[in-house]
Amino acid sequence: MSDTATAIDTLLFPRWILPIAPAGLLEQHALAIAGGRIVGLLPAADARRLAARQVIELPDHLLMPGLVNAHSHAPMTLLRGFADDLPLQEWLNEQIWPAEAAWVGEEFVRDGTRLALAEMLLSGTTCFADMYFFPDVIAQTALDAGMRARLHFPIFDFPSAWGSGAEDYIHKGVTLYDHYKPSGLISVGFGPHAPYTISDGPLEKVAMLAAELDAPIQIHLHETQQEVDDSLRQFGERPLARLARLGLVGPRTQCVHATALDDDDIACLTRANAHVIHCPESNLKLASGFCPVQKLLDAGVNVGLGTDGAASNNDLDLFGELRTAALLAKAVAGNAAALPAEAALRMATLDSARALGLDGEIGSLETGKWADVIALDLSALPQQPLYHPASQLVYGNVSACVTHAWVAGRLLLENRQLLTLNPLAIGERARDWQRRIAGGKTAVQAAS
Amino acid sequence: MSDTATAIDTLLFPRWILPIAPAGLLEQHALAIAGGRIVGLLPAADARRLAARQVIELPDHLLMPGLVNAHSHAPMTLLRGFADDLPLQEWLNEQIWPAEAAWVGEEFVRDGTRLALAEMLLSGTTCFADMYFFPDVIAQTALDAGMRARLHFPIFDFPSAWGSGAEDYIHKGVTLYDHYKPSGLISVGFGPHAPYTISDGPLEKVAMLAAELDAPIQIHLHETQQEVDDSLRQFGERPLARLARLGLVGPRTQCVHATALDDDDIACLTRANAHVIHCPESNLKLASGFCPVQKLLDAGVNVGLGTDGAASNNDLDLFGELRTAALLAKAVAGNAAALPAEAALRMATLDSARALGLDGEIGSLETGKWADVIALDLSALPQQPLYHPASQLVYGNVSACVTHAWVAGRLLLENRQLLTLNPLAIGERARDWQRRIAGGKTAVQAAS
Repeated sequence: MSDTATAIDTLLFPRWILPIAPAGLLEQHALAIAGGRIVGLLPAADARRLAARQVIELPDHLLMPGLVNAHSHAPMTLLRGFADDLPLQEWLNEQIWPAEAAWVGEEFVRDGTRLALAEMLLSGTTCFADMYFFPDVIAQTALDAGMRARLHFPIFDFPSAWGSGAEDYIHKGVTLYDHYKPSGLISVGFGPHAPYTISDGPLEKVAMLAAELDAPIQIHLHETQQEVDDSLRQFGERPLARLARLGLVGPRTQCVHATALDDDDIACLTRANAHVIHCPESNLKLASGFCPVQKLLDAGVNVGLGTDGAASNNDLDLFGELRTAALLAKAVAGNAAALPAEAALRMATLDSARALGLDGEIGSLETGKWADVIALDLSALPQQPLYHPASQLVYGNVSACVTHAWVAGRLLLENRQLLTLNPLAIGERARDWQRRIAGGKTAVQAAS
Repeated sequence: MSDTATAIDTLLFPRWILPIAPAGLLEQHALAIAGGRIVGLLPAADARRLAARQVIELPDHLLMPGLVNAHSHAPMTLLRGFADDLPLQEWLNEQIWPAEAAWVGEEFVRDGTRLALAEMLLSGTTCFADMYFFPDVIAQTALDAGMRARLHFPIFDFPSAWGSGAEDYIHKGVTLYDHYKPSGLISVGFGPHAPYTISDGPLEKVAMLAAELDAPIQIHLHETQQEVDDSLRQFGERPLARLARLGLVGPRTQCVHATALDDDDIACLTRANAHVIHCPESNLKLASGFCPVQKLLDAGVNVGLGTDGAASNNDLDLFGELRTAALLAKAVAGNAAALPAEAALRMATLDSARALGLDGEIGSLETGKWADVIALDLSALPQQPLYHPASQLVYGNVSACVTHAWVAGRLLLENRQLLTLNPLAIGERARDWQRRIAGGKTAVQAAS
């Protein structure tokens, strides 16, 4: 990089840089940002000779790509801890869906998304892929806060506050897709909810339209063995086989959960170059099953990482999620060398970005990519001694060490202060929703 | 409680109190402490009329018993992240034991214990049960910091820096036992390391002496299927059956790990009234296996919770551990209602205390018990909304919310400031050990 070629906006001098790609840890290096993009990752001594509008010293910090949460339902933060310790179908049918039917609207979605954005930035996530009602509101709320977001607009057979049925959802979603096509921060894809909530007709239409638009598809798939058994009974085939027959399984497809996979399923995913989004904490909490992560990786399937919604987690802490993923993968594989620290970190950044089709733009600190970057202060006692920083990021509890977050070069979090969101107002709104929703729950229970 | 009977030292007015026993959450209540013990848990309105030397208002806080970490190797914090992503036997034989042989001594143990104490207090643990070389140094270091500790002095067949073999370890340990008998904070028990590191003779001697002294026994047991298979080959019986035959399995016995259990093993534990100490994160990280927690609870076996050492975890955050325990138990049992939040919290407090034989003294906020108490500030955004505080303690990431910790009524942590430990000095020592140990590792690798 020449010191005359580009006017540098920001030069960051951290203790360590973990670029993810290329692999390995750098010391004595600096990161240069201009026009929202990374324009250099260079020896600190060389960087000291460059002019920049702003120089930030991070002497105790590690710099890495912002985490990419590949599956969330952001507004569901307002239902965090609303109904715990219940099985998936009871949790969905008797608690979550009735609560959503009663409360979800634009205001709920806006307030819940703001709470989610705050929590995600404070724990190192700079991009999230969401699937929820009113994706237009989520997109605008993320944009207002300067956060990068992918909206997979939801599609079901049945009506909701956001639309009347599959046709309507698809129409609204494609309109949203067209609206955001030019934007840098927001992108849109198809979010058919799950094989058990959409019939063949709308699924075929999604496959056709997504192919036409070259647009991503995200779907909950093989979340439980029950789902697979029901599909065999109803359709005579496994959910993945049914989706493949309908043309929905390809290199733009992200299969969320994927806990009940046999060898044929894995071969199908490999052939199709489809992606899996692993949500280990939700899978554990709802007793959904175990995703065979190392087996998928060995078969060449790309695996990204998501928190799922806060109602089944109960947080959006992707560092915690990658720790659970790394620990669990070893026990599931019966091999303590499965999903080592570096691979887990790549899963939560570059591999998640790849699943979303965004790996050319984000997910690593490579020149030319957007400057979606986080800094962690690793000087506190629970991080000492620090033999291998990458390992501590995974096996320690570091989300509260995140001090700074930039998205497209814009500073959104500085020394744990949110710069584009109002935490007091967000907290007040969350408590207000709690009073309304908990009050409603009591009334419903009393009436029944 | 009469307002004239006792001179109250401290009155705490929190937002919530979770006493663990009795079950349930209290609001508008206060906790009274005198002479290091809990002397009242009473309506706040009544408490406002009492005189006390000190009144502490905790308007955003939840008060609960301090966590009891039932299995740790405190000094191993100095080997945190030293060797990750390796299977148990390779990790032990090729990394941990050589490093310990090179470095462990009184100074290592003191510095590592101080680091562990700081980390434990900052994450809500007020009592820990340890097993490591130089337990006398660990005991004195804990006592100096005002922390409650149980030392299970280690016993192996082979020599170490602390002793020449089983006879010597037992002699030193019993001396320690006698020394601390009168103390309130420190208690001592037998720590035969594992069935595969001690022969029958010393095991029988431990059984006999522990029975004579009515002293507790803690042992690593059924950590892996490999251990069970090796024992079947070498002794013709499973490790638990061998220990039972040698008289080591009884109501004072804590079996740590217990991942490879068949129905006969569980029946044996039930009959003997023995305890299991569950260390889920270590079991996952070393791919040791899954402890059948709900099955043990259903069989009437008491299960406590431990972090294991920081070298296989890599932190001593017992809130994180209980979250992993609660999540994992559901997936292992195939039942999302397994180990619900309240049961997980009891596991990390009263049930751990019971495993240690300390449930008459600590583990719940009952009148007459020691005032081992922690406060958590639950007002931050990641805890909102807060429908069920007990649930959020388990399924959220709350260890950094711990603001205060008292042990026997003495304040050791105040607004996250350690009052009896010097964090700067502890950090400096940890970094110094890192330089020495990492330097030594490089030298060994270069020479081999």
